[in-house]
Amino acid sequence: MRIFVLGGDGFCGWPSALHLSAHGHDVTIVDSGVRRRIDTELGVRSLTPIRTLDERVAAWRKATGKTIGTVEMDIALDYEDLTELLSAERPDSIVHFAEQRSAPYSMKSPAHKRYTIDNNVNATHNLMDALVETGVDAHVVHLGSMGVYGYESVPVDLPEGYLTVSYPDRTGTMRSREILYPTNPGSVYHLTKSLDQLVFQFYARNDGVRVTDLHQGIVWGTQTDETTLDEALINRFDYDGDYGTVLNRFLVEATIGYPLTVYGSGGQTRAFINIRNTVQCIRLAVESGDEVSGRPRVMNQVTETHRIADLADLVARVVGAQVVHLSNPRAEADVNELSAVNDHLLALGLDPILLESGLLAESVDIAHKYADRVDKERIPASSYWNREREAKSEVPAGG
Amino acid sequence: MRIFVLGGDGFCGWPSALHLSAHGHDVTIVDSGVRRRIDTELGVRSLTPIRTLDERVAAWRKATGKTIGTVEMDIALDYEDLTELLSAERPDSIVHFAEQRSAPYSMKSPAHKRYTIDNNVNATHNLMDALVETGVDAHVVHLGSMGVYGYESVPVDLPEGYLTVSYPDRTGTMRSREILYPTNPGSVYHLTKSLDQLVFQFYARNDGVRVTDLHQGIVWGTQTDETTLDEALINRFDYDGDYGTVLNRFLVEATIGYPLTVYGSGGQTRAFINIRNTVQCIRLAVESGDEVSGRPRVMNQVTETHRIADLADLVARVVGAQVVHLSNPRAEADVNELSAVNDHLLALGLDPILLESGLLAESVDIAHKYADRVDKERIPASSYWNREREAKSEVPAGG
Repeated sequence: MRIFVLGGDGFCGWPSALHLSAHGHDVTIVDSGVRRRIDTELGVRSLTPIRTLDERVAAWRKATGKTIGTVEMDIALDYEDLTELLSAERPDSIVHFAEQRSAPYSMKSPAHKRYTIDNNVNATHNLMDALVETGVDAHVVHLGSMGVYGYESVPVDLPEGYLTVSYPDRTGTMRSREILYPTNPGSVYHLTKSLDQLVFQFYARNDGVRVTDLHQGIVWGTQTDETTLDEALINRFDYDGDYGTVLNRFLVEATIGYPLTVYGSGGQTRAFINIRNTVQCIRLAVESGDEVSGRPRVMNQVTETHRIADLADLVARVVGAQVVHLSNPRAEADVNELSAVNDHLLALGLDPILLESGLLAESVDIAHKYADRVDKERIPASSYWNREREAKSEVPAGG
Repeated sequence: MRIFVLGGDGFCGWPSALHLSAHGHDVTIVDSGVRRRIDTELGVRSLTPIRTLDERVAAWRKATGKTIGTVEMDIALDYEDLTELLSAERPDSIVHFAEQRSAPYSMKSPAHKRYTIDNNVNATHNLMDALVETGVDAHVVHLGSMGVYGYESVPVDLPEGYLTVSYPDRTGTMRSREILYPTNPGSVYHLTKSLDQLVFQFYARNDGVRVTDLHQGIVWGTQTDETTLDEALINRFDYDGDYGTVLNRFLVEATIGYPLTVYGSGGQTRAFINIRNTVQCIRLAVESGDEVSGRPRVMNQVTETHRIADLADLVARVVGAQVVHLSNPRAEADVNELSAVNDHLLALGLDPILLESGLLAESVDIAHKYADRVDKERIPASSYWNREREAKSEVPAGG
């Protein structure tokens, strides 16, 4: 299949592009380069020494003989260019990662909130608008987030996007209806994924645009079968307070002797997925596009759930480290339950890679190998959800 | 109270600003002037000869001795100016009409879809962001739309924003939960009102921003007690295929001997409200701001529902006119039921002005008085919801 990967230079986008290419698809990466500019803005860099996009695709060609095309384009801004590209290439499928993807970054300042809303909503809407205008019937595979569901609702096994509810009609008779799960996003970033859902719902109904929305858990791990083929293919590894996902941050902290920083009691339960499963799920979603018609298909892209405190304890045990509890910069419930259905991707062939110490070791190796690149100053959280949380902020003793 | 009226130069905004001023409030209109520029873009003008905003507020001062301030600002673009204005003036309440408000305009072309999304989402989000940044605890009264609810759902009396639903928890026990009504907006314009709801939900929870969202029906009528005080205060009256609301369009059509154009069977039931009730509801919402804390307050701002075909028949009978049925440019159900709860505004003091021939006469008088300003070419719909609807388009015989 001819596939565009929007945001294909990022943490999930790059290994997904390689995985799709390895499986025989004709891949073009469309990326604005903004993720690298945000590194500069924040004064951080990937723990792993990532190469330029040109060097990356050249290394892929050298390693495999396969070609990945690249187009520098900001789909939130360059609508005309997007329609020209779509008309010229007429992709079968479009994987849409082209959104600002950090919750803390989205809450960092008033300007960061605005950027996240403006960029993410316009990127998604421009894509829908351009597909309708060009008449290209590409299946869109969008990376959503488990965070749209919220963590304070009725204790259910989170269904895949839709929920069947009952309520009385005008005569008092109970009626059933399947609705988009009532979202309760916890940050401006998660809010944008919730807004995206409504945009997809509208364009699917009004224009027949085919969309799969993947509500992904928190990703851990770095490398995939494809990114390990050559060091120039290495994936990015973020450990900073904004872009570092929790488990990867713990691993770096443990490796360099920094205390593992748990927000609040650590009783928050979250859903997780290994990066190798991420790329597999993206491919499975793309390759099963024929089953999508009518309303958007929503699948939960997760393999397991864990309490944050348990993760910290596991890492502390395997790697040896202290755990410290800090006041939570996020406005969120301190303790919650979470369980999510992931039947659809399992049925399509998802083969879960579950968290255990052997796999942690792989990431620990990377953390060790590049430990001299760590800037400890960048580990603490520096984004607060609101005034109340900011007033309670602390800096870890080890920081 | 000190009140900002964002979009205070528009069809609902202008008479609302006057009504609030007449009731002793200190009103400042903040408007970008975009609605007048859209008239130019579309090659149309208000049936009524509206004056410039400066002339309008001068006439208000002359007629009543009351001062209304004006600020030219596009809140979707001029965030810094907005924060400065908020910090300097610290309003008690902000009425937010500053959104592109026509469904057909929002569906006119790919660029019009993008403008509506970009403008409306950023206007609303900028306002939330600016209130949080400045710490101004103003109560926001936002004009939503009945159209967010959709017209194809379970036959219920549409509740005021929230719906109590039941569904089984993990153990199979049924649980109840109140959720935002599951929206099913029918155009890009209505989609933005649905996105706004989620933005309000987030900022109310995360930062305590106080919001009232008014889901308004289709407005009919033109003048209010305040706009009739002087001809320079006259309100706009749109009759074109994009901005003309259905009943006002029928009245102009009847007056100039153009057939009343009904889309499809006319079996669509819609909710209506007279412009005099609109301004009353805005004032009631503003003055009851103290009851808003926690989640957004949602009220249905409607007084009655009618089938479109019945409205056409009523106008045809009163004014004398032919009714023609055209294929519907909108992707919507041809027939639907609709009934909405409006208890909250009734309890606050809403005094419904219901549709009857006497009131139609007032609008007919205006249509007659300014009939020489009508451009018949601008009456037909020229925006199609999708390719299928465009392919079926017709031009009315009388057009």
